[in-house]
Amino acid sequence: MKIAVLGYGTVGRSICKYIEGDSRDIQIAYVLRRPGKATEPFMTEDFDEILNDPSVGIVVDALSGKIDSYDYMKRALLAGKHVVTANKAALAYAMEELCTIAAKKEVQLKYEASSGGTIPIVSEIISTTHTNYLSSVYGILNGTSNFILDKMINEGSDFAATLKEAQELGYAEADPTADIGGFDVKNKIMILASTAYHGFVTSDFPVSGIEKLTKEILDEYAAEGKTIKLMGISVRNDNDYALGVVPCVIGKDQLEAHVPLNNNMITLVGDMCGEIKLYGQGAGGSPTADALLRDIYSIFNSVNVDVEFQFFRKLRYVPEMLKGSAYIGGTKYEGTLEELVKIAEEKNQFIAFECPEICK
Amino acid sequence: MKIAVLGYGTVGRSICKYIEGDSRDIQIAYVLRRPGKATEPFMTEDFDEILNDPSVGIVVDALSGKIDSYDYMKRALLAGKHVVTANKAALAYAMEELCTIAAKKEVQLKYEASSGGTIPIVSEIISTTHTNYLSSVYGILNGTSNFILDKMINEGSDFAATLKEAQELGYAEADPTADIGGFDVKNKIMILASTAYHGFVTSDFPVSGIEKLTKEILDEYAAEGKTIKLMGISVRNDNDYALGVVPCVIGKDQLEAHVPLNNNMITLVGDMCGEIKLYGQGAGGSPTADALLRDIYSIFNSVNVDVEFQFFRKLRYVPEMLKGSAYIGGTKYEGTLEELVKIAEEKNQFIAFECPEICK
Repeated sequence: MKIAVLGYGTVGRSICKYIEGDSRDIQIAYVLRRPGKATEPFMTEDFDEILNDPSVGIVVDALSGKIDSYDYMKRALLAGKHVVTANKAALAYAMEELCTIAAKKEVQLKYEASSGGTIPIVSEIISTTHTNYLSSVYGILNGTSNFILDKMINEGSDFAATLKEAQELGYAEADPTADIGGFDVKNKIMILASTAYHGFVTSDFPVSGIEKLTKEILDEYAAEGKTIKLMGISVRNDNDYALGVVPCVIGKDQLEAHVPLNNNMITLVGDMCGEIKLYGQGAGGSPTADALLRDIYSIFNSVNVDVEFQFFRKLRYVPEMLKGSAYIGGTKYEGTLEELVKIAEEKNQFIAFECPEICK
Repeated sequence: MKIAVLGYGTVGRSICKYIEGDSRDIQIAYVLRRPGKATEPFMTEDFDEILNDPSVGIVVDALSGKIDSYDYMKRALLAGKHVVTANKAALAYAMEELCTIAAKKEVQLKYEASSGGTIPIVSEIISTTHTNYLSSVYGILNGTSNFILDKMINEGSDFAATLKEAQELGYAEADPTADIGGFDVKNKIMILASTAYHGFVTSDFPVSGIEKLTKEILDEYAAEGKTIKLMGISVRNDNDYALGVVPCVIGKDQLEAHVPLNNNMITLVGDMCGEIKLYGQGAGGSPTADALLRDIYSIFNSVNVDVEFQFFRKLRYVPEMLKGSAYIGGTKYEGTLEELVKIAEEKNQFIAFECPEICK
């Protein structure tokens, strides 16, 4: 089987290196690079060359740009090629459209690498839904913000200094907005909730990040045996659901409180399995490449684990399903997460949400 | 597809109930019960009736006895039927023989339910090995002993009283030897290591349990910010491996220290994925039934995730690969785990092992 890899950054290179050294019958036919960068014979600047080559069975999206990635994935699926992607922004942006095309063209769109890095969360959700009704998916889904929180908690440093350290160490980007503002988690929880609840969630839910967190707030919670973690949360009742991204109050006896550095931990709640938690590296070249490779090999092995799986439900966003209390600027409020995040935005203050579903 | 269920305890009943209520084309053709118990038309006391019915595609082993279970599995595989089992004792006892028959007969022998309860650890190991070299598998693999340790740690109670409470609550059996002595973990770590390292491990490795643990020992470690968990440990280097079951010293900043009640947490270490940890209910009717059902549906869906997977390596037990230090009766010793467990046995004392691989 021949594959084309889009992008030749850390992840793209890692995939090429692995496949070259592997004995299975998979070859890299093309690597798509930006104009002027296609310096080797197997590289191309022309996506149409990939599309028009019928021997290419899988297009592997290892790009970071949202719109480019969306456009390439759509064209590849329309051309009848399987697509494997790590691009959560592009997938969350057009998941319904892309999945619908894949179903129509009878090809696979696989996205293990889009959420939770090396954690096999997508395949685990699909496998779990074969025998379980999932009522909740939530977790620590952003390595950068967890790294910052972990350092702030353990070293007693303040937000600005810790962000700077994270940037110097390569754990945070020069523009950290997507990570610390919760927008990266937003994409991931949309992808995971859609997969878990058999329908497509919409993007109109509350998102709040950790930018306004102070050392003092953390110290106050620490004195009560609690800590703060940025969580993506989703709950579901039949076809109704609610989503949110918000810093949550977590007791020290909960596993999430002890997730170190840039790791992730994701929880599924099913009617037969109870709580399953998966932990691992949420980002990085090697973990992301591993997740992409798993998807590639599962297509190669014809493991259509999602053979029965369809987005058959019409889901409805019901914000009242996520209710709790929150401290905002020293005052306690009760309400839906949507209302609480609105108050925090109006007051320009940090919000610490106590979610009954996950803050036990 | 028709299936036969062996046993009609909590797990067997749960499987029958689920499959009856499910819309997929799977029927319970037989339930094997003990003589005098086959009170319904779909029940039988005669295993040969199941073997001789060519319409039965899968035999589901929900029995607890080791030798009965082994015998039924062997005969079912020889008759060309797929086998799904929850019986870790029978599988660990004859894994090589049973897997060899399954391979020869071109049927599947699936055992997700044998280790880690609802945690999808077997399928995750198989999936991970498609792209990773696994160098270690370890974890908390026994719910009963973890329940006892958790209660002793959090309630400051002593071993005998906690065991009694666990027995009254149904978390420990009347004869708790297999659970608290480490023999249940022994079976599970053998199954997981064999799967992860592509060969069959042997049973000649050190096993020590928690029977001799006292409140005082726990208090001493607590004062140092540490705790004790009963761990199954395996390490591997190419074809060489070492295994052990032993109470380990765990720092409070490690996730394992916070695994509550009767839950399990299992870690895989791979060259690309790094550390992946999976957490969930390690035992119980519903979680075990869920794991068996996943295996049944994966055969039904022809998801042969282990299509490429074989036990192709000839492994060699190298006890020197598990070295560390241990406190035994107040004295610190260094050596291989094998040597240290021998000292503890000679002195008739509790052993707390500090394993460099997992006690960070």
